[in-house]
Amino acid sequence: MKSPFVAELQADQTISTFFLVSEKEIRSTRDARPYLRLELADRTGTIEARMWEGFERDAQAVERDAFVKVQARVENYRGKLQLSIDRLRIAKPDEVEAADYQAQPQIDVAALYAKLLEFVAGVANPSLRQLLEAVVQDPQIAPKLKRAPAAKLMHHAYLGGLLDHVVSLCELSRLVAPHYPEVDGDLLLTGVILHDVGKTEELRYDSALGYTSEGQLLGHILIAYEILVKKMDAIPGFPPKLKSLVLHLLASHHGQYEFGSPKLPMFREALLLHYLDDMDSKMGAAKAALASEHGVDEWTEWNSALDRRLLRVEQYLKSEPEKK
Amino acid sequence: MKSPFVAELQADQTISTFFLVSEKEIRSTRDARPYLRLELADRTGTIEARMWEGFERDAQAVERDAFVKVQARVENYRGKLQLSIDRLRIAKPDEVEAADYQAQPQIDVAALYAKLLEFVAGVANPSLRQLLEAVVQDPQIAPKLKRAPAAKLMHHAYLGGLLDHVVSLCELSRLVAPHYPEVDGDLLLTGVILHDVGKTEELRYDSALGYTSEGQLLGHILIAYEILVKKMDAIPGFPPKLKSLVLHLLASHHGQYEFGSPKLPMFREALLLHYLDDMDSKMGAAKAALASEHGVDEWTEWNSALDRRLLRVEQYLKSEPEKK
Amino acid sequence: MKSPFVAELQADQTISTFFLVSEKEIRSTRDARPYLRLELADRTGTIEARMWEGFERDAQAVERDAFVKVQARVENYRGKLQLSIDRLRIAKPDEVEAADYQAQPQIDVAALYAKLLEFVAGVANPSLRQLLEAVVQDPQIAPKLKRAPAAKLMHHAYLGGLLDHVVSLCELSRLVAPHYPEVDGDLLLTGVILHDVGKTEELRYDSALGYTSEGQLLGHILIAYEILVKKMDAIPGFPPKLKSLVLHLLASHHGQYEFGSPKLPMFREALLLHYLDDMDSKMGAAKAALASEHGVDEWTEWNSALDRRLLRVEQYLKSEPEKK
Amino acid sequence: MKSPFVAELQADQTISTFFLVSEKEIRSTRDARPYLRLELADRTGTIEARMWEGFERDAQAVERDAFVKVQARVENYRGKLQLSIDRLRIAKPDEVEAADYQAQPQIDVAALYAKLLEFVAGVANPSLRQLLEAVVQDPQIAPKLKRAPAAKLMHHAYLGGLLDHVVSLCELSRLVAPHYPEVDGDLLLTGVILHDVGKTEELRYDSALGYTSEGQLLGHILIAYEILVKKMDAIPGFPPKLKSLVLHLLASHHGQYEFGSPKLPMFREALLLHYLDDMDSKMGAAKAALASEHGVDEWTEWNSALDRRLLRVEQYLKSEPEKK
Amino acid sequence: MKSPFVAELQADQTISTFFLVSEKEIRSTRDARPYLRLELADRTGTIEARMWEGFERDAQAVERDAFVKVQARVENYRGKLQLSIDRLRIAKPDEVEAADYQAQPQIDVAALYAKLLEFVAGVANPSLRQLLEAVVQDPQIAPKLKRAPAAKLMHHAYLGGLLDHVVSLCELSRLVAPHYPEVDGDLLLTGVILHDVGKTEELRYDSALGYTSEGQLLGHILIAYEILVKKMDAIPGFPPKLKSLVLHLLASHHGQYEFGSPKLPMFREALLLHYLDDMDSKMGAAKAALASEHGVDEWTEWNSALDRRLLRVEQYLKSEPEKK
Amino acid sequence: MKSPFVAELQADQTISTFFLVSEKEIRSTRDARPYLRLELADRTGTIEARMWEGFERDAQAVERDAFVKVQARVENYRGKLQLSIDRLRIAKPDEVEAADYQAQPQIDVAALYAKLLEFVAGVANPSLRQLLEAVVQDPQIAPKLKRAPAAKLMHHAYLGGLLDHVVSLCELSRLVAPHYPEVDGDLLLTGVILHDVGKTEELRYDSALGYTSEGQLLGHILIAYEILVKKMDAIPGFPPKLKSLVLHLLASHHGQYEFGSPKLPMFREALLLHYLDDMDSKMGAAKAALASEHGVDEWTEWNSALDRRLLRVEQYLKSEPEKK
Repeated sequence: MKSPFVAELQADQTISTFFLVSEKEIRSTRDARPYLRLELADRTGTIEARMWEGFERDAQAVERDAFVKVQARVENYRGKLQLSIDRLRIAKPDEVEAADYQAQPQIDVAALYAKLLEFVAGVANPSLRQLLEAVVQDPQIAPKLKRAPAAKLMHHAYLGGLLDHVVSLCELSRLVAPHYPEVDGDLLLTGVILHDVGKTEELRYDSALGYTSEGQLLGHILIAYEILVKKMDAIPGFPPKLKSLVLHLLASHHGQYEFGSPKLPMFREALLLHYLDDMDSKMGAAKAALASEHGVDEWTEWNSALDRRLLRVEQYLKSEPEKK
Repeated sequence: MKSPFVAELQADQTISTFFLVSEKEIRSTRDARPYLRLELADRTGTIEARMWEGFERDAQAVERDAFVKVQARVENYRGKLQLSIDRLRIAKPDEVEAADYQAQPQIDVAALYAKLLEFVAGVANPSLRQLLEAVVQDPQIAPKLKRAPAAKLMHHAYLGGLLDHVVSLCELSRLVAPHYPEVDGDLLLTGVILHDVGKTEELRYDSALGYTSEGQLLGHILIAYEILVKKMDAIPGFPPKLKSLVLHLLASHHGQYEFGSPKLPMFREALLLHYLDDMDSKMGAAKAALASEHGVDEWTEWNSALDRRLLRVEQYLKSEPEKK
Repeated sequence: MKSPFVAELQADQTISTFFLVSEKEIRSTRDARPYLRLELADRTGTIEARMWEGFERDAQAVERDAFVKVQARVENYRGKLQLSIDRLRIAKPDEVEAADYQAQPQIDVAALYAKLLEFVAGVANPSLRQLLEAVVQDPQIAPKLKRAPAAKLMHHAYLGGLLDHVVSLCELSRLVAPHYPEVDGDLLLTGVILHDVGKTEELRYDSALGYTSEGQLLGHILIAYEILVKKMDAIPGFPPKLKSLVLHLLASHHGQYEFGSPKLPMFREALLLHYLDDMDSKMGAAKAALASEHGVDEWTEWNSALDRRLLRVEQYLKSEPEKK
Repeated sequence: MKSPFVAELQADQTISTFFLVSEKEIRSTRDARPYLRLELADRTGTIEARMWEGFERDAQAVERDAFVKVQARVENYRGKLQLSIDRLRIAKPDEVEAADYQAQPQIDVAALYAKLLEFVAGVANPSLRQLLEAVVQDPQIAPKLKRAPAAKLMHHAYLGGLLDHVVSLCELSRLVAPHYPEVDGDLLLTGVILHDVGKTEELRYDSALGYTSEGQLLGHILIAYEILVKKMDAIPGFPPKLKSLVLHLLASHHGQYEFGSPKLPMFREALLLHYLDDMDSKMGAAKAALASEHGVDEWTEWNSALDRRLLRVEQYLKSEPEKK
Repeated sequence: MKSPFVAELQADQTISTFFLVSEKEIRSTRDARPYLRLELADRTGTIEARMWEGFERDAQAVERDAFVKVQARVENYRGKLQLSIDRLRIAKPDEVEAADYQAQPQIDVAALYAKLLEFVAGVANPSLRQLLEAVVQDPQIAPKLKRAPAAKLMHHAYLGGLLDHVVSLCELSRLVAPHYPEVDGDLLLTGVILHDVGKTEELRYDSALGYTSEGQLLGHILIAYEILVKKMDAIPGFPPKLKSLVLHLLASHHGQYEFGSPKLPMFREALLLHYLDDMDSKMGAAKAALASEHGVDEWTEWNSALDRRLLRVEQYLKSEPEKK
Repeated sequence: MKSPFVAELQADQTISTFFLVSEKEIRSTRDARPYLRLELADRTGTIEARMWEGFERDAQAVERDAFVKVQARVENYRGKLQLSIDRLRIAKPDEVEAADYQAQPQIDVAALYAKLLEFVAGVANPSLRQLLEAVVQDPQIAPKLKRAPAAKLMHHAYLGGLLDHVVSLCELSRLVAPHYPEVDGDLLLTGVILHDVGKTEELRYDSALGYTSEGQLLGHILIAYEILVKKMDAIPGFPPKLKSLVLHLLASHHGQYEFGSPKLPMFREALLLHYLDDMDSKMGAAKAALASEHGVDEWTEWNSALDRRLLRVEQYLKSEPEKK
């Protein structure tokens, strides 16, 4: 087992250990001297590292997703630790154990996935149920569905966050759909379960969270579009017009052009999917903001997902009246 | 009883009967000749009327909310009936029966109001429950709450529509609040029940639907602000910080500055109130659009509340494949 | 052969002839009486029709794309002819000849298509050339490509307009690509030829121009997405990363989110495709605006595609100086 | 003297008289038959006219600013008079007296111009005073300054309106400048007097109000730019940096890019010019809206310059309380 | 008397003295170690302070508005002094004199307040004058009115700034109102004096400038709404429609929805109030920007209230011509 | 020859040498102590400098464009060199050689200028050719045209960049104009060559790149407006309407109000000029972004001209598939 882990580092320590490279960049200082910046990861976290000298030769073979051995000093810069690397080389296969480098979800994804399967099993429309089973039980997709976050920064930005968000939406849909009797609950649930499945490919979450190049080029709506088209075409007798409805649910779920939806929601289930998704995402963002201890007095720090501060209601109700 | 009623009028008929004036306007033609335009109402509907000659003397005393006797010809202009008035005078008090001029809600407002009282009774926080009782049982407010529409055009635009929308939101809140355990259900329900109470004064709905001058000058958020401030101040020991939270729920429920909210929602219950209100309003607008028979093929006509057409899903699924 | 054709109708004429239904709608007048509105077409044009009485029985079987026999009066309303229908029935198969009802492109689509094939043949990259051939020579797609317009209203809004626009862009690309030596001409040409292929399904152009329901639900970018995914997957050894680039070209060609592109152009060829497409579309819109005789003095009438009037330069240069 | 004048026309009258052509357009009906639309003017007003038949030959020589003899019927279409022309020809020079065709300002432009000269005379900075004199006393510019409106539709849209607005702003400046002691009153007044001088060329106001082609191509800011550059260059020793300041005042006075200012106000006098100009324009628009008798109850009709209705305060204060 | 004061601190000094806490925050470094950040104040200024170790016990009782004794080192970080705290405790009541901790306005607020009373006394309308007296002489409000700033950052951001801005606007109103004879000067002045009175509660200005929690939740428009409603209701016979006008003046004074006004100005006095307020605020912001010595060459530094740099006109006129 | 040059500086060196001042600013630290910030330049680059003590006396005579002698220490702050000045004085004329302080374009501007003359010579319309010759061969303008950049930051931001961009556009125009046969190639080329000529005065490029005060006050469109007006007026018989067209080309070339164009393009050549200019600017920005080595994996760093990252296509096509 490697030692020390990122979470164990102390300022002013000198270390010699292994990491996974999660980002690599050559930068130059303003007086035009190049240096190497890396983001290094293990299962306990990530840390920034810089190498100022002699990296040209060593850094050649170093790419994202490579394992490296690093000799470095831990420095505290403005309350944040970073590494100043002295020596760097590619690790040999027998020097690393993969398990040391992959963080594990902190929530019970197995339980969430079981709930998801229950929701799928409850869909009455056979075409839609077949489609849902084909996606969530796909051996390529299922493991990613159990691990992917829902975003890098905005909401549910943690391992398993995607599944957490989707199951939350399933539960909401089961509550809200009966309130609008004209709404087709099966169609809504199909939208809920499938609308973000493209995030399994849009994001990187093997080590640090980020976006894949395909994710940046196409986005999760289009990535899911291909997946769903193929799954529906593979189901004998899937009604072509139902296919158009499912694809519209996917395409319109961001609700507005400026948020990357190429179409606006145009029927009841698409409207409802958008509103529930937006509501649950923002409630998730609010939960994360309020869970952090940062902030001023009874307010959280500025939250960029919501573009505002939030009030801690309980703390506010208990506080003294303010002086002007 | 008056005869004929608006709903009974036929093109090319000549009539002599009574109406309530719901709008009065002097217009001039482009060659600068003035004429009188009225909107006339009874309990079955409204009709436009024009008087081209001799109205200067007769129209003097005619104002909005006056009862008038009219001698006129019914004309069909592009498929729409309107009156061309020959003679006009103020009706005498004993010539009219008020009941003939006031439309009645087409939904069961008594049942809805009873449901509302139940929701109020279920609030555990005594300050909030006292506030809710003080508002919804106020003898000035209660009758208006049973009659007011939720809007002139956008959603729930019918007598009783406000109550319909509020009770719908109460039910939604009871379903959704437990899904977010950190949410204070009492606070949310308080926001739900009170957020639109200003519409009882913002809108006119005694005869035709419209806006009052106070409604145009201040809007329903500010009108309710005064009502709620006074009700809370009248409750002994109402916590001042709780008062600020209730007022914030009211002030922020439109969710964005450009929709007339002077503040953005800044705590969980305010966020949730905004999302649920927005969702239920749009679902109401969609329901009305789909209920109308107007439209082209399987699409509704252009809907200005949603700024799009909506698809009639069932009709679409049954339709033939299209030719290109 | 049917008689008279739409183009031959005269005001005040009474006719008894056949048409293709290109739009059907039930409307109601404001006094709540329903009537039937049709758009009727033959190969010479379209005309609005209304049926005020007795249509309930007759109109049952009448749907878009049906052939009907109509007995009607031609009326001139504000300088525009329309039909007032007295009797209406579905035509029998042997009463109509399809050729009478389908307008023909007014430009030489065969020549344009030949040019297109030449451009395809000039592509050096074998994967891209195979893709292009697979699309433009697909027996389902080719005939539509020769007939579809590029839009209903905005630019190149005529039969064959899509092909006209695409070939114009091919020529532009051949001129402009060498000006930017780093640009991969094959990749650019691939984007040019394929970016609008979804319009063959987004639009209806069998009789009158319009949008299909699938077109409204998904739009031409997503429709083409499915086509291209399948064509590329069907080519053995098509490089997966090249596939992502082609799909990005398609997805980003509108250049901005608010114009329905779910992604912004992120590499040189995608930028160039967007700029050339935008330029050629607007030049096409300008050409159409200037070709019309409508307008005031030396200015065209207001053009909604460009949101402005255009100056007729030659007429302006020859005009007299104006008085203030 | 001609007879009848536009202001004297009556519906159903047949007339044979002379007009000035203030707009000419060939339009086609939707069934593709061309017709002639004219706007005809004399000193009492303008009227729309249409000629449906036989105009091809007669209309050849008819252009904007031509005098024509017209034989026509006066028709009332929806409360608006228009002419249906039977015969049309160019008038002979001795058939018309110019004075019959040019409306006269309804305000005392001589008195306003005298006030303007006083303001100019009060400027202490010799360079700026020379510039102002050179512009307002220019024999080409002065007569136009006494006649031009400030806009076609938005504010001060009447003959002499430009001068009215400028003198109003001079008075405001004299009041407000001393309130901000750091403000250079001479520089501000220079901006006030010169900022809209380009409107003398941007607008047409010889007969009906409209825009010149140069006005549409360049706008009044750029038109004035040329005038001011030349006037300043013609003054010996005009300081070059002062010239830049004067040009900036002109260029930035609309205050924002989207209102056509290529620069934002960047010093005190430029800020103040923008705010005063905006305020006076909107107060002018409000005055015009409230002066019209149109509207509903105590509200004006929708005002497009202000994008809202305005309340008639006095009428509102006297009105009865409204029923809901 | 305490020593040293904030204004006397020197880098590298070690101090042991008292401060008022104006902001308290627990932050964590990125390696998850918590630390304490305080903003400390006395009457001469504020200074940032950090405590890295041992604060958990000491900081418990430390809240905003507490007096503390601090043992610390003064450090210079990038040209800015801050404290690194070694020891911290709550001060005993007899250790501090309140006068040492409250900054005093640098302008003559007594004279400004006297001017304000004069303006109030000049109002002819008895209802409005009673309202104004009731507000500005309210013993709760008057002292705050003499101390509050007009903003934290944007304009008039200094003690007494609110009164300075209001009196400036009163003077402007007295100058400008007569220029528009239809304007009711009393109504305008009422708007001017009352429109920002909510800022006395929206802002904190006892020690450092900031926003109260109520200010963030409701904003100064709504805070003033409650004050004015109550004051008007307390005046016997205050006309209800006049009350609506006063409340509209308040509600609409920001002029646009996106600046937090829930209503647009809808009558002359409301329009004028908005334009004068906007103008005076921006002139105030310009004055502050030009008074600072910061900037590049003859330009101020970037000003966030105006979103631009401003030119120093005098310095520009005297500067040499530039080289390109 | 001076020594060392900016490009030769090393951290921790002590130097005593000469520089050109390209920016001067007095700043104060937050504890209110003033210091001097300079940007110093020679022909090899620029460097930031700070003087903390004793500058009040020495800095008096130091202004932008002055030559100074500096005694200083070179410091490395976060990978960027800057000077900490100990002593400072104005250089004597015989101490400096101008050639040491002026950077030289890195592209062959003589060749580009020769190409430009060829394009001018190819214009058939004699008025336009005369205009072009008068501008590009003007002895005041020509040397600046050979040196000016096209922007400070956005695109072609290097010495000679303006000429590079203009010649690139000339070549594009020669390719594209024949594709639209209705386009007047001479008019288009005139717009291309003249549209940015105001940048020769808007920007400073004698030492470091920046904006002149005139450039900030008026912008390059208005600066060129004056130049072109005068050049056209100086050509006998230049048609006035052609002058309006040329000025419109200039005024509208940014294409939208929010980018500082006071008019939208209103004829074909103006539309085309805008689209080509926009395309070439963005392709230039993309080229610069891709030429830099900065970035993450196969993406460039964030590019502010394009507001996105760009993909390095070749590197992407060669990269390994990513892990999620």
